[in-house]
Amino acid sequence: MRGTVLYGPRDVRSEELPDPTIVEPTDAIIRLPFTCVCGSDLWPYRGIDEVSEPVPMGHEYAGIVEEVGSEVRNIRPGQFVVGSFFASDNTCEICRAGYQASCVNRQPGAPTGAQAEYARIPLADGTLVATPEVPDEELIPHLLAASDVLGTGWFGAVAAEAGPGKTVAVVGDGAVGLLAVLAARQMGADRIIAMSRHASRQELAREFGATDIVEERGDEGVERIKEMTEGLGAHSVIEAVGTQEAMMQAIRSTRPGGHVGFVGVLHGVEIPGEEFFFSHVHLHGGPAPVRRFLPELIGLIWEGKIEPGKVFDLTLPLEEVAEGYRAMDERRAIKTLLRP
Amino acid sequence: MRGTVLYGPRDVRSEELPDPTIVEPTDAIIRLPFTCVCGSDLWPYRGIDEVSEPVPMGHEYAGIVEEVGSEVRNIRPGQFVVGSFFASDNTCEICRAGYQASCVNRQPGAPTGAQAEYARIPLADGTLVATPEVPDEELIPHLLAASDVLGTGWFGAVAAEAGPGKTVAVVGDGAVGLLAVLAARQMGADRIIAMSRHASRQELAREFGATDIVEERGDEGVERIKEMTEGLGAHSVIEAVGTQEAMMQAIRSTRPGGHVGFVGVLHGVEIPGEEFFFSHVHLHGGPAPVRRFLPELIGLIWEGKIEPGKVFDLTLPLEEVAEGYRAMDERRAIKTLLRP
Repeated sequence: MRGTVLYGPRDVRSEELPDPTIVEPTDAIIRLPFTCVCGSDLWPYRGIDEVSEPVPMGHEYAGIVEEVGSEVRNIRPGQFVVGSFFASDNTCEICRAGYQASCVNRQPGAPTGAQAEYARIPLADGTLVATPEVPDEELIPHLLAASDVLGTGWFGAVAAEAGPGKTVAVVGDGAVGLLAVLAARQMGADRIIAMSRHASRQELAREFGATDIVEERGDEGVERIKEMTEGLGAHSVIEAVGTQEAMMQAIRSTRPGGHVGFVGVLHGVEIPGEEFFFSHVHLHGGPAPVRRFLPELIGLIWEGKIEPGKVFDLTLPLEEVAEGYRAMDERRAIKTLLRP
Repeated sequence: MRGTVLYGPRDVRSEELPDPTIVEPTDAIIRLPFTCVCGSDLWPYRGIDEVSEPVPMGHEYAGIVEEVGSEVRNIRPGQFVVGSFFASDNTCEICRAGYQASCVNRQPGAPTGAQAEYARIPLADGTLVATPEVPDEELIPHLLAASDVLGTGWFGAVAAEAGPGKTVAVVGDGAVGLLAVLAARQMGADRIIAMSRHASRQELAREFGATDIVEERGDEGVERIKEMTEGLGAHSVIEAVGTQEAMMQAIRSTRPGGHVGFVGVLHGVEIPGEEFFFSHVHLHGGPAPVRRFLPELIGLIWEGKIEPGKVFDLTLPLEEVAEGYRAMDERRAIKTLLRP
């Protein structure tokens, strides 16, 4: 099959790879009508996460089940399914508490890589959620978005306790930040402040439900949020970047007693204890337990209530994956959709 | 009046100080039948918090109102009142959300020092809570404990979401940690693990409701907690020390999706972002908004349901305050009660 391999910093290649096969009796093989590039793929692409050997890329997937292992009970060939970047049994105590991304049997969700024509998915019964029917093609990018960026933005909004009566601020205008805006809107937040200085992203943020845009960053951004909230800070702030500056901007933009939900994969971040102690904020986040949210998200997409796939502003053939990475790296594209 | 002044590391003196007087029309003056030394007083006593000029000590207080300023409406002379280490208006949006220790008009709760015969309390209407009547003397140490150590341990348990069905672990066997055990018991936790290697403190922890004692610390302590929780970690962990080791022990002892409530004043702590990201724990704490809990805590003490004053295991005349500090510094005493 055609797949994608990262060899080193900025060296990502479309290649012929072996077709994935059932390895464990709990596996499924799915065919991917679309696939995509994640903002988190840019960490190894940029060399910030070290790449010691060639690695198959892609961890977002939605597609048609081709084959299942002998122990798979709930998923069957022909179904259209959505999964997430960690495979989980969905039965352990951690999964039952809604933290499937920390399942005691956690595995990579698509170990053979999902920027490809096919993918092997471990723990298929626990990991995959089937849609009511096989969707029309135009629905598939929205469902694909549910498998990571939407699920991650959604978790950010849940962790930040976005809801009615709340002012929510979102740090980061990547696909996750934009979908955190959409999530906060769905959860009924009163006011949603998107922090962005890019016109096209501001526009999408407004379309997703942002009521205000703040262009300032760092301490100036914090000051603007305070000015807009009677000096108190937002009730809920979603951190969707993962850098020290973004995390501090999030903590400092939150009022005492408020909630920071952080979903940017933290890189080189140290949270200073004394400042955090006196900030009085709640801090929660990490890898989104997308599986918790998938039934609800699939339902919203199926009913046409949300269109998260709008974050895909560049579509390329799978063979041109390298250009897809470049466009996101240079911020020419929010998120690249790939067509095998 | 007799009061207490810290001049520098391990140089704390009992001295004659001017009687406090009403400065602002919102002040009250209270007479203190008992007072005490706080674990957090040991930070400046040990020279870890710098002392640049002589500073009046003591921030825990409960006593009889002697005089009130012209704008005080709810508190009147003759009442017995309990306050806390931050004065708060109890009317601003942050107070109304339950975060009085971050009140927009926050001030030190006892700026003249409360290891003394009298104290001036700012924002008396917001800060002070009167007991139903003037209590008998034996009840006063329990009420005094409510003003800080009990309120702080209680906040730790609230922040850690201790409750029915939960396994709670407490890092730190000082007065706050021991009272966090008491709080978790009151909140109905199933299992309460006190981490302590001191026989007398273990005994008090058991009396307050601990079901298990773990003597190991650091990584070994974490391993013990995991062994006791099917490898998952506790649901709720209360950090009542404030050091890097204690904070990491708390985070690592908590299961994914669980809650760390931290109330030890953090000193030199940096929370490593990447580890925290993948820990999936909730983190909340800071200076306890004791005012939020005072009505409930006073009620429980008044009805004889809790006896938090049992943490006082040394009673001295106020003049011997220096020995009270020494005994706590050397861990000969859990907490020193002083009698003016």
